[in-house]
Amino acid sequence: MRRLATEANTLHISAMVPFDTLRFDPAGLIPAIAQQHDTGQVLMLAWMNRASIEETLRTGQVIYWSRSRGALWRKGETSGQVQRLVEMRLDCDGDALLLLVDQTGVACHTGRRSCFYRAARDGAWVEIVAPEVAPETLYASAQRPTRTG
Amino acid sequence: MRRLATEANTLHISAMVPFDTLRFDPAGLIPAIAQQHDTGQVLMLAWMNRASIEETLRTGQVIYWSRSRGALWRKGETSGQVQRLVEMRLDCDGDALLLLVDQTGVACHTGRRSCFYRAARDGAWVEIVAPEVAPETLYASAQRPTRTG
Repeated sequence: MRRLATEANTLHISAMVPFDTLRFDPAGLIPAIAQQHDTGQVLMLAWMNRASIEETLRTGQVIYWSRSRGALWRKGETSGQVQRLVEMRLDCDGDALLLLVDQTGVACHTGRRSCFYRAARDGAWVEIVAPEVAPETLYASAQRPTRTG
Repeated sequence: MRRLATEANTLHISAMVPFDTLRFDPAGLIPAIAQQHDTGQVLMLAWMNRASIEETLRTGQVIYWSRSRGALWRKGETSGQVQRLVEMRLDCDGDALLLLVDQTGVACHTGRRSCFYRAARDGAWVEIVAPEVAPETLYASAQRPTRTG
């Protein structure tokens, strides 16, 4: 589909991309890495389907597909920790996306900037980054959601 | 498994990690992001199984699982473009790995440093990085392998 984004009040990051270049898995999903565009920090890995890619490109706000909830996951909708899309990149064989984003606050539901806060050291997964925010604060006005990669 | 790596002549990045912390998919795989440890460049996304994680931690050289070939994929075995493991990280819900690596040469079989060389721009996937090396040079002495994410 080569539909152009024509809605008013949207960030026109890009017109809609051709989807036949993408290789979705049997569930219709593709893994997407979110990387902070200026620092290079890898924030998280989540999954997108066609609808979430379309909405992300149309609105400039990153939307994933939650495999656990089976629904679109508008990142930050509950917590306010949204991701603004700076650029969407595709890998050589079309089965992985790299999202350069501008992350508001923390990406991880544990209150850390990045979800990758454990490192393999001396036979254990060691937490090498402390939370910046208490999860209770992040989700103060809502049920605390589970992380939904 | 909490086996310690005891082989001589190996880089003891880490003793073996507990595998019950990892959430493999139904095929026994987990996605792994490779990131250049010093520049922060995201190089590629590939897949690992338990055996490839074990061998990666034991040897300090990154080994993936090739889904297309159904075999361990010793990155750089054919091309020489190996990845030395600097640190292995795990995300909050245990279903994605981040490998901080030192990439020799280029990570992508197309001759580019990163596999993410296409960007969504104006309704197309636009190549924004040119190859540094001709693929024919990379695989001069062997059949040119396909990219095997």
